[in-house]
Amino acid sequence: MLRWGHRPRDFRVTTHVALTARAFGSSGLILTDVEDKSLKANLEKTIADWGGCFTFEMGVPWKKAIAEWKKNGGTTIHLTMYGQNINEAGLMEQIRSLKRDVLVMVGSQKVPPDFFSEKFSDYNIAVGGQPHSEIAALAVFLDRMFQGKQLSTEFEHARIKVLPSKRGKCLADSDKDKQPA
Amino acid sequence: MLRWGHRPRDFRVTTHVALTARAFGSSGLILTDVEDKSLKANLEKTIADWGGCFTFEMGVPWKKAIAEWKKNGGTTIHLTMYGQNINEAGLMEQIRSLKRDVLVMVGSQKVPPDFFSEKFSDYNIAVGGQPHSEIAALAVFLDRMFQGKQLSTEFEHARIKVLPSKRGKCLADSDKDKQPA
Repeated sequence: MLRWGHRPRDFRVTTHVALTARAFGSSGLILTDVEDKSLKANLEKTIADWGGCFTFEMGVPWKKAIAEWKKNGGTTIHLTMYGQNINEAGLMEQIRSLKRDVLVMVGSQKVPPDFFSEKFSDYNIAVGGQPHSEIAALAVFLDRMFQGKQLSTEFEHARIKVLPSKRGKCLADSDKDKQPA
Repeated sequence: MLRWGHRPRDFRVTTHVALTARAFGSSGLILTDVEDKSLKANLEKTIADWGGCFTFEMGVPWKKAIAEWKKNGGTTIHLTMYGQNINEAGLMEQIRSLKRDVLVMVGSQKVPPDFFSEKFSDYNIAVGGQPHSEIAALAVFLDRMFQGKQLSTEFEHARIKVLPSKRGKCLADSDKDKQPA
């Protein structure tokens, strides 16, 4: 997953993008063009506590990141309200049938026009044509891509995990289960 | 839809919550316990441009808003990573079959424990048990609730709308079509 256009005022939004990518089955995040060490630390803490594998790169120029992905045979998908509607018949099936590594790309309000070009985006997909949120777009795209299964996945090497419950908060904390040496 | 726990640092996140609620078929937003006039102005501008009906209330105490909803025969659903998994067989069908007005409630990191109680939440539902984003949770919940149809809805009285496109940005702006008087 690739995030373009992280500005200081978007700090919380980019954190939500990163956590959503991880929780919804992405294998990593590339934060292009800028660096954000506190986001990196935040993600490392999340992975240490909640498990799973999730890579994080930052500061790579966006064109370079995309070119590399495509060179390795991957597909690139730009989520934008201007794209073809995600509800279009057969679209998600088509993407899944490619059986390629997919780079999902979200920007902030104004991405450079090149983002829309064939050179960079194999698909421009709209999670509806209304203004809303790149976090919402990412979540729905991944939910449909993985057909909901990602929300039942167990993350490996988790220190803590939630035990689903109709009332209240139930957490399993493996540190608390450990016997003293 | 009800939003609890809006702090200044969450300004952008609450804006994303509001826009997602609107774009994904909610009829309105109650921002509880606090007021935010710039959010109100932002939403009014969005509705004037992009159409549709969407109500906005702010400053109502959360317990009062929920009590009123329930008194009017509505169902309340608290989205929380600690709840029962949205993937649980039959859960969404059960909620749809109630045929009641649904109040979806999202907080920020720490909601008061009462949020989990039967008095306030008919359901506590987890869009996966991993930490991520109330925006992502809301989007996926509504996408599944409305079975994706909300993303193909036309909003009435829109001044501008997107014309879906595989490449570039296409907008229809009704002001530009108007003949001079």
